[in-house]
Amino acid sequence: MNFAQKVKSYKKINLCIGLDPVWEKLPEHIRTSEQPLVEFCGEIIDKTKDIAVSYKPNLAFFEVFGSKGWDQLKQVVSLVPDDCIVIADGKRGDIGSTAAAYSTSIFDKLSFDAATVNAYLGADSIEPFLKNPEKGIFILTLTTNPGGSDLQSLVCEGEPLYIHVVRLARRLNRLGNVGLVVGATKTQYWNKILETAVDMPLLIPGIGAQGGDIDALKLELADYASAAFVNASRSIIYASSERDFGERAREEALKLYEHFIA
Amino acid sequence: MNFAQKVKSYKKINLCIGLDPVWEKLPEHIRTSEQPLVEFCGEIIDKTKDIAVSYKPNLAFFEVFGSKGWDQLKQVVSLVPDDCIVIADGKRGDIGSTAAAYSTSIFDKLSFDAATVNAYLGADSIEPFLKNPEKGIFILTLTTNPGGSDLQSLVCEGEPLYIHVVRLARRLNRLGNVGLVVGATKTQYWNKILETAVDMPLLIPGIGAQGGDIDALKLELADYASAAFVNASRSIIYASSERDFGERAREEALKLYEHFIA
Repeated sequence: MNFAQKVKSYKKINLCIGLDPVWEKLPEHIRTSEQPLVEFCGEIIDKTKDIAVSYKPNLAFFEVFGSKGWDQLKQVVSLVPDDCIVIADGKRGDIGSTAAAYSTSIFDKLSFDAATVNAYLGADSIEPFLKNPEKGIFILTLTTNPGGSDLQSLVCEGEPLYIHVVRLARRLNRLGNVGLVVGATKTQYWNKILETAVDMPLLIPGIGAQGGDIDALKLELADYASAAFVNASRSIIYASSERDFGERAREEALKLYEHFIA
Repeated sequence: MNFAQKVKSYKKINLCIGLDPVWEKLPEHIRTSEQPLVEFCGEIIDKTKDIAVSYKPNLAFFEVFGSKGWDQLKQVVSLVPDDCIVIADGKRGDIGSTAAAYSTSIFDKLSFDAATVNAYLGADSIEPFLKNPEKGIFILTLTTNPGGSDLQSLVCEGEPLYIHVVRLARRLNRLGNVGLVVGATKTQYWNKILETAVDMPLLIPGIGAQGGDIDALKLELADYASAAFVNASRSIIYASSERDFGERAREEALKLYEHFIA
């Protein structure tokens, strides 16, 4: 199934769970296991896979463990059910031949379905990620962090920079496999973004620990023509640091899910 | 020695060699070795270390080999002499806690001296890389690829976006460990960049295979107050695909070096 069809098979608002296995936050009994990242993420996936339709491992938290982290990342991707979208959150962006190597690494070697991508280097830095219609990308548009506005909100030739990013994304979306990363903490700017995006899928970080407002988000998305993947990481995966972390993650995931569909 | 001091110990224009071990381009006898990336990069380093003062492994070309690539990357870094700067060309950029993990991975685990960083996520995405004055970063400013102008050249509030990036870099440069990536193929835009950068070190890709003009570059840098690291990758490391690739790399490196200092 190609990426555009897969996205269409989901609801309007869906849960994505961010897999950010930060060592200090892992339950004690996990830290002493042979493959702590696989144990931890595997349990989260197992306990939430009937609630979430997407998982987003953050590559930094695997890379920091070196080759062992890289090996475990590959295993974590393989634990996600086939009907889910696994997103490599690596925010890569480089010139053509290098972007092609990142694309091969993420899509072919690690078997991710999608990747987050940084557009600062322009169209030819993104195109190598778009050749396979079964794989998709989410281009960083408006991020949740305070510094996000340092460059993203500059008014360039009459429009904020992030709107230029949306237009660039539209231009690249020939196969229907381009989406946008739009922060839930900044819904006041969404109107123009969604109008320009028309029907590109959205990956939305910033709810949960980062404080984004789900009701504001639901209101903005009410008439939007594509699916949104609302990501929560810490509020779900670190709901408990004890042996019950999987169960507690399930409870938190369920709460969020019920809030979406209510 | 801190990063700023180390940079001051070099000449005005210095050679940086980009280590991009693309599998298809590696000499036959290297491909059949146990650790092809270490063999290849090690030979390049060994044959050029009295000419180059900096090496820049591109992380994508190691990542694409998975955990084996990551292990070899660490070894390659360790082969660079201590008086050189080893730059992790990974162009990372993410929110605070993730940027901190990338910084730990690149500087502490892999022992790089410096990293290339993408500023689209703003100041708080860069600050985690700047805490150790012994380590430095080069912020992507104006890149060599055609798509580089898609966003970078947009005029934002009276100035091109890349000038805003330079100002952001200046603002972050409290410990003297922030530099800029400025493409050699676009020297016509350098005047304003160098004027705004004042004295931040420069990493300059785009000569060699990408066609940047060394004479134009020398002219622009004549009165600049900091060191420039001019990077060439393919024109040096793939000068030969035979057993003499190290010697041939040395010859090409020497030609470039003589062109700088002539």
